[in-house]
Amino acid sequence: MRLDRLGEFGAIDLIKSVCAKPGPEVRAGIGDDAASFVPGPGQTLVSTDMLVEGVHFDLSYTGFEDLGHRSLAANLSDIAAMGGTPLYYLASLALTGGEGSDGLTELYRGFESAAMPHGVRAIGGDTCRSTGPVVISVTIIGEAGPKGPVLRSTARPGDDIYVTGTLGDSAAGLVILRARPGGKWTEAGGQGGHGNAASDAHAAYLVSRHLRPSARVTAGMLLGGSGLASAMIDVSDGFSSDLGHILDESGVGAVIDRENLPVSGVLSGLLGRSKAVRSALHGGEDYELIFTARPGARKKVAALLKDAGTAVSLVGKVTLQKGAYLLSRKGAVSALRPRGYEHFRK
Amino acid sequence: MRLDRLGEFGAIDLIKSVCAKPGPEVRAGIGDDAASFVPGPGQTLVSTDMLVEGVHFDLSYTGFEDLGHRSLAANLSDIAAMGGTPLYYLASLALTGGEGSDGLTELYRGFESAAMPHGVRAIGGDTCRSTGPVVISVTIIGEAGPKGPVLRSTARPGDDIYVTGTLGDSAAGLVILRARPGGKWTEAGGQGGHGNAASDAHAAYLVSRHLRPSARVTAGMLLGGSGLASAMIDVSDGFSSDLGHILDESGVGAVIDRENLPVSGVLSGLLGRSKAVRSALHGGEDYELIFTARPGARKKVAALLKDAGTAVSLVGKVTLQKGAYLLSRKGAVSALRPRGYEHFRK
Repeated sequence: MRLDRLGEFGAIDLIKSVCAKPGPEVRAGIGDDAASFVPGPGQTLVSTDMLVEGVHFDLSYTGFEDLGHRSLAANLSDIAAMGGTPLYYLASLALTGGEGSDGLTELYRGFESAAMPHGVRAIGGDTCRSTGPVVISVTIIGEAGPKGPVLRSTARPGDDIYVTGTLGDSAAGLVILRARPGGKWTEAGGQGGHGNAASDAHAAYLVSRHLRPSARVTAGMLLGGSGLASAMIDVSDGFSSDLGHILDESGVGAVIDRENLPVSGVLSGLLGRSKAVRSALHGGEDYELIFTARPGARKKVAALLKDAGTAVSLVGKVTLQKGAYLLSRKGAVSALRPRGYEHFRK
Repeated sequence: MRLDRLGEFGAIDLIKSVCAKPGPEVRAGIGDDAASFVPGPGQTLVSTDMLVEGVHFDLSYTGFEDLGHRSLAANLSDIAAMGGTPLYYLASLALTGGEGSDGLTELYRGFESAAMPHGVRAIGGDTCRSTGPVVISVTIIGEAGPKGPVLRSTARPGDDIYVTGTLGDSAAGLVILRARPGGKWTEAGGQGGHGNAASDAHAAYLVSRHLRPSARVTAGMLLGGSGLASAMIDVSDGFSSDLGHILDESGVGAVIDRENLPVSGVLSGLLGRSKAVRSALHGGEDYELIFTARPGARKKVAALLKDAGTAVSLVGKVTLQKGAYLLSRKGAVSALRPRGYEHFRK
């Protein structure tokens, strides 16, 4: 059905039908002037992220369900980066009306597919008309652990620097999507039939890392609850930029061991180790966590990330001297400049 | 300065310099992955509203400072409508880049001019590039009173229906703005010089009710804290539509006394009482409060609104039978259909 026939309040009913119901701690949910919930004992966390068609996503290769999933994952990642537990979300949507009720349903299915595994519930939002690009603004609410949120500004000289999972896959997935002439990615379709099954599977893996990223929710919660992480951020703009934020805010520097940067076998198989590391250093939207911890905590960190089921790599060291440097296998040192994504910069 | 020269992080620094600093209960504010604050004892309230250029506002007659003020006021009003206290806001902005740093500064000055009088502080947000219209999405956080939030769904048959202030001014102000050929409203400019001083002042009053609305923050807080209001909503879409939401959600009806609908002397002077009431019934964005209360509470309601410094009018009665009706001075009854604003409907 067209959105102009469904109407604003028909849209609210549709959204309610797609979303899982929150628990009794939510007194007012979708459809009142504001949502209300009984806060837990920890500090409340809140973050908001805006995605604009033509800037953050391209509907020619992104389905609405992927889009919903990806935007919610980016928000879950912000709560994980504070070491908190995500609880609720509110999605504001500016739609052209041409998406129809199917587009709206798919968007919310995507939100829910990212939110549900973590028990995160929709409690409000806003749906309105846009004269231009589709815009999605998700607000996420969470709760910090008993030791408070893990900030960007509290890394200390001598701390180890860790990163979860692997880096650079999402940026490579985006390159693959952009190279495909029109049409959306389908696993069955592969690379248009002229690849082999193995390379199709590899491409599909990288594409899914871009379209369906997973936030490191459990790892973030456990790190925040344990007090082991001295500072933390998620990789949204790119490792070089996001590490830079920790360093700038903490007034410290870093040496990163190039050899230890985690890249997937798929990525290094496709690009070779050198180009894969380049994608890992500057590619965005991996939604992995960068965190720092005392060197004496290595065993505890390893055990905790094992509990979370998340791979972790020790990639460098915080230095008293400012500036970020990259150390090669042969011992060559080069400056590591932030070259991740920044809005408005050309 | 152009936003593309300022950069995303320059923009964050600019925003920090315009906004009042939050208190020590805010551990992480603007610039971390998420904001964090120590919640109070009451239920947490959260609401989000999106404004799209060309749908909700027109930059040919709305300055950025007015725009910021108005969008924040709409959010304050949502918290007031729950009977809560507004505390924090986060603004997500999609800008074309052409607004320059002056546009961004003015927007935030507008947010702050609405927020500051109520001690409401910026704790986060997102600034990104848009390929199309300017989009503003504000999330507001508040705290409900000790008796919990005032919902839309809890009006009871026999309750009185009240409305604060006067209705219809904002819609009339918008008509005046739209009739002006280009250019922004200036008090000095009046109606282009061909009106007299008195009518210019009247037009300026109505225009300011549209561009610089005041949310009924104190009245909402006192009503929520007292437990006097059985149901409440703010007038954003229009009285007929917003009253309709209370009635639909509560499963009741209403009779509204046309004679008692509050319109300003300016509006009835300009349009005549009959047309002024029409603007009052269906015009949106007045950000007044509609609430219901037991008939035995009339003296208490009057005293409480006097404390808030807010005028209040008793405009009707909740009925067991569904449907909304308008009662004329001569006793004629007519159906009151929701004719306020609804997105996507043509």
